[in-house]
Formats: sequence, structure tokens, C-alpha cells
Amino acid sequence: MKIPFTKMHGLGNSYIYIDLFQHKLEEAMLPALAQSVSNMNTGIGSDGIILIHPSERAALGMRIFNKDGSEGQSCGNGLRCTAKYAYEHGIVDVTQFQIETKANIVEAEVQIQNNNVQLVTINMGKPQLNRADIPMIGSETEKVVAEQFKIMDQQLKVTAVSMGNPHAVFVVDNIDDAPLVELGPSIEKDKRFPQGINVEFIEVLTPTEINFCVWERGSGITQACGTGACAAVVAAALNDLVNRNEQITVHLPGGDLFIKWDDQGYVWMTGGAEVIATGDYYYDD
Amino acid sequence: MKIPFTKMHGLGNSYIYIDLFQHKLEEAMLPALAQSVSNMNTGIGSDGIILIHPSERAALGMRIFNKDGSEGQSCGNGLRCTAKYAYEHGIVDVTQFQIETKANIVEAEVQIQNNNVQLVTINMGKPQLNRADIPMIGSETEKVVAEQFKIMDQQLKVTAVSMGNPHAVFVVDNIDDAPLVELGPSIEKDKRFPQGINVEFIEVLTPTEINFCVWERGSGITQACGTGACAAVVAAALNDLVNRNEQITVHLPGGDLFIKWDDQGYVWMTGGAEVIATGDYYYDD
Repeated sequence: MKIPFTKMHGLGNSYIYIDLFQHKLEEAMLPALAQSVSNMNTGIGSDGIILIHPSERAALGMRIFNKDGSEGQSCGNGLRCTAKYAYEHGIVDVTQFQIETKANIVEAEVQIQNNNVQLVTINMGKPQLNRADIPMIGSETEKVVAEQFKIMDQQLKVTAVSMGNPHAVFVVDNIDDAPLVELGPSIEKDKRFPQGINVEFIEVLTPTEINFCVWERGSGITQACGTGACAAVVAAALNDLVNRNEQITVHLPGGDLFIKWDDQGYVWMTGGAEVIATGDYYYDD
Repeated sequence: MKIPFTKMHGLGNSYIYIDLFQHKLEEAMLPALAQSVSNMNTGIGSDGIILIHPSERAALGMRIFNKDGSEGQSCGNGLRCTAKYAYEHGIVDVTQFQIETKANIVEAEVQIQNNNVQLVTINMGKPQLNRADIPMIGSETEKVVAEQFKIMDQQLKVTAVSMGNPHAVFVVDNIDDAPLVELGPSIEKDKRFPQGINVEFIEVLTPTEINFCVWERGSGITQACGTGACAAVVAAALNDLVNRNEQITVHLPGGDLFIKWDDQGYVWMTGGAEVIATGDYYYDD
């Protein structure tokens, strides 16, 4: 069967988008389809599929199936691409709307130029800062801000933030010297973080601009991590290194994101979304 | 710009095919386009691009640009896909025709079922068997057939075949025990092969069927190597293990190929070619 698709990426995080407003797929085939189409040699190649579907609770919904066939919860890069697709294909005719994900309902806003979506802003929710919510073991203080953290004979200072998933943020003088490979694996699996942790190093350039690199839990070094960029800005603000309620430019290896932690406590992530290709996938199930 | 494409694969060796009968591209943009579209994260993802173009010397021509942007000579898996495309898109209206490559002009034959190409046969030319043509250092005999070959304290017997590129073929009792990882890297770079060598292990099942695995020069273990499968059948025939002038089924990790070394000395490779997807690539050059 031929399945119409759009391949899009946000900071190099690419998915095959399938529009279920236009084309129905059977539930039972989705895991195998995700595995098939994600294979670069015999399929198109991607990090998985994202289904854009009608929703009773929002303007549209999205579901993610990872390249191993498992269903994911949500994805910041995927949300931006989904919002772009929805506006450019007339699923929505307003620039602010809601998208249902398996995790929750999120607000999206698109910025338009020549009828094309240039940037998308997603409300990433409020960070959780309590030690127990990260989760992180210890009893020194309720919040974990610039707390002494010894690892492999090095004395660091950690700020811990949950954006739905756990992050440990460390400030360095120069991003090029960040001990990502050296310490990332040990911090990820350190017993003080019972669910493991994503590890971010940041270099503060100005009160509105930081450099960023990440060791993702379960994945190692990646080019971009949306929740990590949000956690980095929250951590930098908690340490009075960047401005609150103002858009902070985060330079990730895969590109830039613009993050604001507003006075109401919400974190807004703004970034690009790119169409790579459109066409038909020849699926031989 | 939008570039119409077809992604196809032969035994998992995938390229983005661009039809220059329909769509012109500037020569200068080809290396960058190949790099861009081959990237799985920000492009479609492939081993490179293959341009199908008009030819004054054959029914059509094909050019390969690898994913690093360099131009390749030829590719058996790519030739099968190119032949399928040419027939199914009316570039040719006969089942036997010639394709010009950067290396030479090759004969192709397609087998049709319901107007679709099921299998493609390519004339892979005559093997070169002289020691100097492999090239291999030594003076024992002109041809290298079941010659004693000591490597890392193991005593093997090598048969050497050039199919335009050099191959060293070793017979084992059981393909699952082939010392591919153990000996492949050492044989590839052994000083007896001044240009390096592709390393194949084969298990002979019957006089018309063999198992096959390969360590490719410069690439390591791969799922399929068309010239390697040809060399394997030639080597097996030289050792009187398979029938000459008859189609031999070669089981590669990526799928099956059917190879015949005919009485005139030509090697014919038959195998499948699959369309993965068609569409437009959004190229932002």
C-alpha cells in the first residue's frame, strides 16, 4: 500500500509525519510501520513516525511511535513540526491552538511569513524543582540549586530541574571544555538519581544567551534536546545567570532554540521546523 | 527548490534516484545535494544519489554520488534499481538494454510480472584471475586458487578474484563460524594485497547454492556486496564446488542473489530491486 507522508525535522530530530485527517491507518499496524519506515536502508529513515490525528480535546492530536516500534509520550521537536504542518495544511486556521499528546494537552503558537510557518512556540509547562520530584536523593534543601556534587574526584555544582523528565545542569566556563564524554555516563547513572538523569553543561555568554551541550539518558550525546534546553534556562535563572521572563537564546549543537521562563512559571520554547520531503511510502506489510 | 525523487534499494543498499530525463540539475550542485539528501537527520537518508540520465552510448546512463559527495564508478545494486526504474517509467520499452556507467557500458535484462519488474539481471563482466590483476604479491602460480594462506596463526586457503575490485574468497564448513570479525580486518590490510582486498567467506550447501558473508574493503561488515557474490561463485567454480554455466543461489545477510558464470566467461548477477518511496525533496541549497 502507498502511505502519503511528510518528513520533517526540528534541529535534526526527524520523523515521518502521517496525516490521519486524510488517510486512515489500522492501529495494529502502527508499531511495525514505524520500524519499517524508520530503517534507513530499506525504509525512508527517521527517528520514528508521528501521527497527526483528530482530537476531541484539542484542535488536533499527535502520537509518536519510536523507531523500535514503542509508543512515545511527547517530543518538543515533534510538537513544533506538528504545529507547522497543522497550520500549513489548514487543520487549524488560527495561529494559537492546542495539541493533544499522550502526555498532556499543550499550547502552540506559530509565526507566519509568506503563508509559511517560520517559528513555533510551545508551552512546555512548569518545571518541577522539588528534590523529590526530580527525583534526587538527599536532604540538604528542598530545591537543588548550585549544590556541591562530587563525581569521579571532581567537585561540581549541580542544579536539578524536572521538565517531566529529570535534568542535572552544570555551569562551565567554556562549552568546548565541558566534560560531556568524561562525566556524562557516570552522572547519568549516579545513584543519587534513582531514575537516572539527563546531563547538561552550559556556558553563560550574556544574561540572554547560553551555549549548551547534552548527554541524554539512554541515548548519550545528541544534537538537540528540547526539554534539556528548557531545564538549562530554568537552572541558569535559578542561579541568577540569565533573565527571567525574557527570551534566552540557547545554542545547541543542532541549532538554536529560544526559551522563556515566564512570571507565571511556564516555560515557552520557540524554534524552527523544517519540511524535508513529501511523497508516498510504498509499504509492503 | 523541490526535486522529484524515487528512493529504491537492492538488498538494503539504498539510493535517492533522480530522473534527469524529466528534471535538470546543475553539475556544480551534485556533490552538495548528495551529502544533503543522504543525511538521515536533516535529509531523506541513503547511501547517496544516483542520477538516471540520457546517454549517447546506451539506452540510458547512470551516475553515482556517494554520501560524502564523491562520485562513484558503478554499483551492482544500483544498476538493478536503475534498470527497474528505466523500464517502469518508459525510458526503455524492451527488456534487454544497455546502461552507461562511469566505469563502462553494462547489459541489463528485466523480468516482468504484471507490468512490474520483479528481477533484474546485470552482466558484471569477466573476472580477472591473474595474480598481477588482483593484485596479489607472490610467484607460486598465475592464478590464485586454494592457495595456502597463513594469517594470525591460522592456516587458510585463499582463492583470489577481481571483478574490477579485488576479492579474497575462503571456504568454511559453517557460515555462522566464519571468522569475519576476527580475521576480516587483518586480511583486508594484509601486505600481500597491495590495494587492500574485500574478504568473503562462503559455505557450499549444494553445487547450486552457497551461504555468503563479507568484510568490505573500507566499510567492514555489510549486508550485501554484489561484486563479492560474483567473486564467490567464480571462486567456488574454480574449486569445483559449484556448477559452471548454471545459476547459483547466493544467500547474503541482506537477501539472495543469483549468479551465473557462463561458458563465455561472463558473470551474470540476478536479483531484486525495490521502490521504497516517491516524492519531492525540499532542497534548500
